[in-house]
Amino acid sequence: MLEVAGTPKPGNVDRRRDLDDLRFEQFLAGGVGSGRGLRRAAGGAPVGEAFERAVDGMSQQSGGNTQFGCLLLLVPLVRAAAAGDLSPAGVTDVVEGTTVEDAADFYRAFDHVAVAVGDPPADAPDLDVRHGSDAVSAVRERGVTLYDVMELAVERGDGSSGDGNAREWVSGFPRTFRAAESIGADEGPVLDRAARAFVDLLADDAELDTLVATQHGPERAREVRRRAREVGGDPQSTEPPVERIDLDAAEALAEEFAADGVNPGTTADAVAAALFVALERGVTV
Amino acid sequence: MLEVAGTPKPGNVDRRRDLDDLRFEQFLAGGVGSGRGLRRAAGGAPVGEAFERAVDGMSQQSGGNTQFGCLLLLVPLVRAAAAGDLSPAGVTDVVEGTTVEDAADFYRAFDHVAVAVGDPPADAPDLDVRHGSDAVSAVRERGVTLYDVMELAVERGDGSSGDGNAREWVSGFPRTFRAAESIGADEGPVLDRAARAFVDLLADDAELDTLVATQHGPERAREVRRRAREVGGDPQSTEPPVERIDLDAAEALAEEFAADGVNPGTTADAVAAALFVALERGVTV
Repeated sequence: MLEVAGTPKPGNVDRRRDLDDLRFEQFLAGGVGSGRGLRRAAGGAPVGEAFERAVDGMSQQSGGNTQFGCLLLLVPLVRAAAAGDLSPAGVTDVVEGTTVEDAADFYRAFDHVAVAVGDPPADAPDLDVRHGSDAVSAVRERGVTLYDVMELAVERGDGSSGDGNAREWVSGFPRTFRAAESIGADEGPVLDRAARAFVDLLADDAELDTLVATQHGPERAREVRRRAREVGGDPQSTEPPVERIDLDAAEALAEEFAADGVNPGTTADAVAAALFVALERGVTV
Repeated sequence: MLEVAGTPKPGNVDRRRDLDDLRFEQFLAGGVGSGRGLRRAAGGAPVGEAFERAVDGMSQQSGGNTQFGCLLLLVPLVRAAAAGDLSPAGVTDVVEGTTVEDAADFYRAFDHVAVAVGDPPADAPDLDVRHGSDAVSAVRERGVTLYDVMELAVERGDGSSGDGNAREWVSGFPRTFRAAESIGADEGPVLDRAARAFVDLLADDAELDTLVATQHGPERAREVRRRAREVGGDPQSTEPPVERIDLDAAEALAEEFAADGVNPGTTADAVAAALFVALERGVTV
């Protein structure tokens, strides 16, 4: 909820902006609704089960998908935090420990809500996540774990950038932890820190926003990245975001992206994950 | 959280406005933090215990009191809903059934957070809520239930209007249920409905905002009511709020109240309670 409240977050719903078909309060309701699943994760439930429950709760509002990708990052992080090791190694232990049943629950989660995703790998059409629970038998036959599913998404054969959230899963959540450090080193109210973390991640050399690339193509996603750099985004910088990023300039960018229907939703997922880590490490609200 | 997100809510924190010392995200954190206590209420825990737990969770942010009064209304309503009778009679059963132990837990809740309240009754200085848990022995000696405490607040001997939330408790929550009906009969996104319900309650003949009266005196509270009427507030009207209330005019009022430090917080409590009832009755997000 801190993520969606942070403003400006160019192209996304935030405290000051709704999209035509998705409103701020639907994110609040989605966030509250996901709580039960997240609490299960904190209590040690399997990643797939906790995720499916969180998505089920999230979808009890009329806006559709609000936090699917965000929950995909949060659930293993919550598990890692509950196990006392909220670090790249700790969360990697969690995701590498996922099973075929976790994968089956992941597919079931797609029954609750329509999610914008790319095409499946050419050699695994039966693993298209859009099949939802209908793909569970294929998951079992192929014996793929949830970690395997994420690896397949990263290695997608269609030349696209793969799924940004899946890439976090299989590489120790580097964007999440780097952004969490940056939020911790930043100054001022947490919602301003969230907004600056968003601009930083949007400017990331290592990753184009998956949702923008899926909806508008990689050229547009690169243009979005370039614009984020113009307002000061630079996730590799050692200078604190408050010294670099001009939120007034980002405000103008927000108006422009909204007008063009550019919606960097995957970047918002990473900000939400980073905020969780930053709160666990002592950033206060 | 829908209450605090509704905008404009003249004089209060909302989606578009912070106060100098109290920010929007602190209400979000307070709302999430209160969830554990509210879930206890839904599970049938005593009103005082559930309230004290909710306030404890609410206070785990750095802004101080965000939803104390709101929770005082919500806890018995949640209990009544869980018991299958969310009505004036149902919630009256709940509050009339409160005990001395509920009163003791209510006093303990004041240990968690500073709350703006009026003076205690002249003949019961030992029941000053500001004593927090130090007043528990006096509560036990006098044998007052939580319902009795609310009656004492209403019958306050200092000539002020008493506490608006206490008055709801001892009279079947009339403002809450009337506003819930109005929200149900209104049109458009729930945050707009919340904003219009706020203007209506602020214009109520039957009740001045307790927090404004406590902080600025009853004259100022009457002026606030008059201004709410000017922008269309009229809780007795049978015309739907969307037909009467001009949210653009309320926006100007919001700027003015904010500049003057007028903060009708008790009216916001009633809106939050009314939103809960409206959601339970089928209004969707």
